[in-house]
Amino acid sequence: MIKTLSIKINGKGLHDITPLVAGEVESSGVDEGLCSLFIQHTSASLLIQENYDPSAKTDLERWFDRLVPENDPIYTHTTEGPDDMPAHIKAALTATSLSIPVIGGSLALGSWQGIFLWEQRHHRGSRRVVVHL
Amino acid sequence: MIKTLSIKINGKGLHDITPLVAGEVESSGVDEGLCSLFIQHTSASLLIQENYDPSAKTDLERWFDRLVPENDPIYTHTTEGPDDMPAHIKAALTATSLSIPVIGGSLALGSWQGIFLWEQRHHRGSRRVVVHL
Amino acid sequence: MIKTLSIKINGKGLHDITPLVAGEVESSGVDEGLCSLFIQHTSASLLIQENYDPSAKTDLERWFDRLVPENDPIYTHTTEGPDDMPAHIKAALTATSLSIPVIGGSLALGSWQGIFLWEQRHHRGSRRVVVHL
Repeated sequence: MIKTLSIKINGKGLHDITPLVAGEVESSGVDEGLCSLFIQHTSASLLIQENYDPSAKTDLERWFDRLVPENDPIYTHTTEGPDDMPAHIKAALTATSLSIPVIGGSLALGSWQGIFLWEQRHHRGSRRVVVHL
Repeated sequence: MIKTLSIKINGKGLHDITPLVAGEVESSGVDEGLCSLFIQHTSASLLIQENYDPSAKTDLERWFDRLVPENDPIYTHTTEGPDDMPAHIKAALTATSLSIPVIGGSLALGSWQGIFLWEQRHHRGSRRVVVHL
Repeated sequence: MIKTLSIKINGKGLHDITPLVAGEVESSGVDEGLCSLFIQHTSASLLIQENYDPSAKTDLERWFDRLVPENDPIYTHTTEGPDDMPAHIKAALTATSLSIPVIGGSLALGSWQGIFLWEQRHHRGSRRVVVHL
């Protein structure tokens, strides 16, 4: 099963897409296998991280924003705005594809793991993630 | 074949799990395919790195510890201890899932590649890695 | 289908291997599936990034070179030259394996995505990437 999801994003940051992906696994009827996700963008990425305490999410975003700030004089790729090059770098530091096992018809995530789409730009709109099962 | 391994960890750092994964590939009887690994934690990660000279391992650990130190005033997620938020960040910078080809019944690793579980916390206990073949 | 590609590299930096991988997908005859890539090295890596404006590529290389410079006094793993340890670290920060969906016989890349082999050393020669379909 391959399906391209169009995911609405209301701004920069980590968006929990676990329920969306879990729903696709459930409706696929796959009992055991591998769920591979691929994001079709170079300024947004995928991340599996703690889904329990929101402060972990906030700290991740703040730490990456400090490591890769906007308006760094090293950038020459600036025509699409000050958030563009930092977005490419943060995407390079995180994941474009992820593979999660499916056991007993469900994603075999750890107790505190959530799947996040990390929007790296000041972007409202939609992002495409391809699910392969 | 899907199997969840419980791996004993005796502290922070890179733990070579290549023999463990190779043993699973061998006992599976798979001749050609893909071996996917998934770690069910957000403060430990997976890494393929040089397995020959131990100084490469030490330098990797030291470099990441300097980039992501404990007690950084930017952290607000601190209730689980000073090593918790750095662990989440280092996990985000490395891999939660890896896929390694299997050729002729063995992992198709390069000459100097080993598979490591990177424990990011001061943790003694066990970590779970799911192997899908 | 599993095939090991030997890719000629003429020096450090991002090398676009999209046409090479797309050719393997085409000749495999796979219509729907998953194309997994694995690089058999610890000082070169894989990256999916913008393939349109060359300045994005240059900025990525410059930013990573600044984050992980040669001759950092923290390194003890120096016998193979000043570019060796930075190469291992940059490989750890990016990807060793990638999985890209195949739809309608083609790689389901986004409009601006290219697949790059990131040579992290001052290296002329060849690198091996295993393609699994």
